Amino acid sequence: MGGSFLSFEGIDGSGKSTQARRLAAALQAAGRAALLTREPGGSPGAEEIRRLVLEGEPDRWSAETELLLFTAARRDHLEKTIRPALARGEVVITDRFADSSRIYQGMTRGDLAGTVDALHALMIGVEPDLTLLIDIDPEVGLSRAMARKGTEQRFEDMGLDMQRRMRAGFLALAAAQPARFRVIDGARPEAEVAAAVQDAVFRHLGL
Amino acid sequence: MGGSFLSFEGIDGSGKSTQARRLAAALQAAGRAALLTREPGGSPGAEEIRRLVLEGEPDRWSAETELLLFTAARRDHLEKTIRPALARGEVVITDRFADSSRIYQGMTRGDLAGTVDALHALMIGVEPDLTLLIDIDPEVGLSRAMARKGTEQRFEDMGLDMQRRMRAGFLALAAAQPARFRVIDGARPEAEVAAAVQDAVFRHLGL
Ligand SMILES: Nc1ncnc2c1ncn2[C@@H]1O[C@H](COP(=O)(O)OP(=O)(O)OP(=O)(O)O)[C@@H](O)[C@H]1O
Ligand SMILES: Nc1ncnc2c1ncn2[C@@H]1O[C@H](COP(=O)(O)OP(=O)(O)OP(=O)(O)O)[C@@H](O)[C@H]1O
Ligand SMILES: [Mg+2]
Ligand SMILES: [Mg+2]
Repeated sequence: MGGSFLSFEGIDGSGKSTQARRLAAALQAAGRAALLTREPGGSPGAEEIRRLVLEGEPDRWSAETELLLFTAARRDHLEKTIRPALARGEVVITDRFADSSRIYQGMTRGDLAGTVDALHALMIGVEPDLTLLIDIDPEVGLSRAMARKGTEQRFEDMGLDMQRRMRAGFLALAAAQPARFRVIDGARPEAEVAAAVQDAVFRHLGL
Repeated sequence: MGGSFLSFEGIDGSGKSTQARRLAAALQAAGRAALLTREPGGSPGAEEIRRLVLEGEPDRWSAETELLLFTAARRDHLEKTIRPALARGEVVITDRFADSSRIYQGMTRGDLAGTVDALHALMIGVEPDLTLLIDIDPEVGLSRAMARKGTEQRFEDMGLDMQRRMRAGFLALAAAQPARFRVIDGARPEAEVAAAVQDAVFRHLGL
């Protein structure tokens, strides 16, 4: 059986990392080798690029330079982690992939949307077989974040209004590519969300 | 008077850095503000990316990832160093620019040539006003390198045959864009080459 390439997407605090971990465990329990990875990062080189982008002053890179650096990291992630695991027949689960660039770079700088797509077509070229969009109201995400230890810097940086626009952006991507996306209501308790994710993925894999 | 954007190109050891320094001094002596810069690097961010690409194992990045990283560095160099200097009316002299990517990435991986051009068009978009191609027989460059202290790693890595192909590649670029390129015979003594460079540049600038 060939490998399968799955991604989790959604706004900050929607539950992507939680659900990606649970899905990896469920697949392993069902006897499928599953590799859990994340972006930005996911390979040693991509993690170095991640540090370069995220450390230092927030405005040290322009949106265009940041997009190029994230694309370099994605290319390395694809070559060194994702493709080899797919070639071994594993299920690859990535916590964010190119849709996050479409939303984050494409929405914070609206004029860049076309560039994001062109750069993806030129240097990456592949999409996940299935993308789980964990959809929540940003106010739910914010209240979860408040419950976490520490402050939730990104919400403060981005603001609730930007999170709302990003939610709408993700839903628009999903509507445009219904064969690839599954929209999962993430406002429910964790185990319920996990069951919905598992149902969608196991169906897709024929398990 | 507006700024002017000049680049030096040529194979390893052709004399680019030597001539770029001499030209900057000649322009300053003629009363023109000149900024001397280089690639990869040329801005604090781009120098960090340079270190990331050039440190570590030579094969840690694929040609595609390396191309993306160099393009990110070039974008930062353009935004932070080149464009501001041009806006101040200075003459910007860069030791290598996009033509080096066309030759190095485009020739070491021939199938990448189209990608190099497409990525440049998408993310960089500008060319120098004038490019000085310092042209020498690779054997001359090699004998100069031998005279330098230390070993000349790149010649050993690349081989004379690759240097010959790169020389031909640079000459083909120059033939395709005669309005932008000036081919300078770099086999002559340093001061003679400098005079030929200065003549071409001062004419171009109307000095
Ligand atoms: N269904 C749920 N109900 C309540 N809390 C949840 C649920 N899913 C996740 N959480 C909690 O919400 C917080 C955010 O979850 P998680 O880190 O998985 O989100 P994320 O989408 O990965 O966020 P980020 O974008 O910040 O990486 C965590 O504290 C997590 O324990
Ligand atoms: N016209 C010349 N005649 C003899 N030697 C020269 C001449 N120009 C430069 N050199 C010497 O040749 C060597 C290479 O010159 P330089 O470093 O300027 O080349 P470069 O094109 O910048 O090389 P690299 O691609 O390695 O950066 C140096 O030792 C320099 O002093
Ligand atoms: Mg997460
Ligand atoms: Mg040099």
